[in-house]
Amino acid sequence: MAPRKQQEIFDATLRLVAEKGYDGLTVEGVAECSGVNKTTIYRWWPSKAALLGAALIEADVLGFDPPDTGSLRGDLVSLVEAVTRLLTERPSGDIAVAALAAAVRHPELDAHRFFADRFAREREIFERAVRRGELKESADPMLIVDMLAGAVWMRAVFRGLRVTDDFADAAVAALLDGI
Amino acid sequence: MAPRKQQEIFDATLRLVAEKGYDGLTVEGVAECSGVNKTTIYRWWPSKAALLGAALIEADVLGFDPPDTGSLRGDLVSLVEAVTRLLTERPSGDIAVAALAAAVRHPELDAHRFFADRFAREREIFERAVRRGELKESADPMLIVDMLAGAVWMRAVFRGLRVTDDFADAAVAALLDGI
Repeated sequence: MAPRKQQEIFDATLRLVAEKGYDGLTVEGVAECSGVNKTTIYRWWPSKAALLGAALIEADVLGFDPPDTGSLRGDLVSLVEAVTRLLTERPSGDIAVAALAAAVRHPELDAHRFFADRFAREREIFERAVRRGELKESADPMLIVDMLAGAVWMRAVFRGLRVTDDFADAAVAALLDGI
Repeated sequence: MAPRKQQEIFDATLRLVAEKGYDGLTVEGVAECSGVNKTTIYRWWPSKAALLGAALIEADVLGFDPPDTGSLRGDLVSLVEAVTRLLTERPSGDIAVAALAAAVRHPELDAHRFFADRFAREREIFERAVRRGELKESADPMLIVDMLAGAVWMRAVFRGLRVTDDFADAAVAALLDGI
């Protein structure tokens, strides 16, 4: 399938899940919105869970390139800012929250793959930091990512509070400089 | 209402939301499971959102007493262990995840109150630590709680990975000793 057509299908999938939730998402609806035949979609993705899973990882709208600012502190601040944008801007925030809500109730929608995919890309931040001597080789990259990204989820989604401009600096400083 | 009857209603509410999700939760169902008249429940809680909100905060099964171990490190490790139990044991894990999924799709279910209530109780950990000279007065208790609890949500719920026995120690050490 042409990459552009695929992105249109992913866009329609994510727009529908953000608007109607997972229960309101149908392959028929995606087909209609993206002007593609339903059977074509089923040929590529055997279920709506598979389609949404692929869209979460491959859609440009949720695209993610790990930062490379030259320092661990800069990279981590940039990472926290990227998670904050993902969760607070539209449509990505609506998509992320709708997808999470769906994933916890529908295990066949493998949201763990989304987080594993992100982490695979984030690893290089830590490999560079170890090479530069900024981070001990024994440091646990997943723990660092989870404390930072988890704090944004808690603040923005669970507490429904504004993530202030100084949040990324403060969170990263708590890890790098101690509390 | 007698406290014991109230706990039975809360138990039924949480059991139903864990089993059937928010859409499957009905005041009728709660009335049936708890042997209370539907109109009695409505007299105390005007909607199923209000009922679930009250149950999340007041049910004994999700009960939470902030730890008081004598040190900031001990209290934070204990806090992480409590969040881990909440999210990974049954039925509390099913309840927490179902309630979160419901809350993000149904703003009328005010899940923010749950987190605000917990944080109000957690504050004393940090007040004691400041008095003991273990924590700067300028430290941000909500940031600390959100990094620690957020990391457990990421690991256990979003990634679906096991929270190992050393997780609490490692997460707290990252904040207190740096990474």
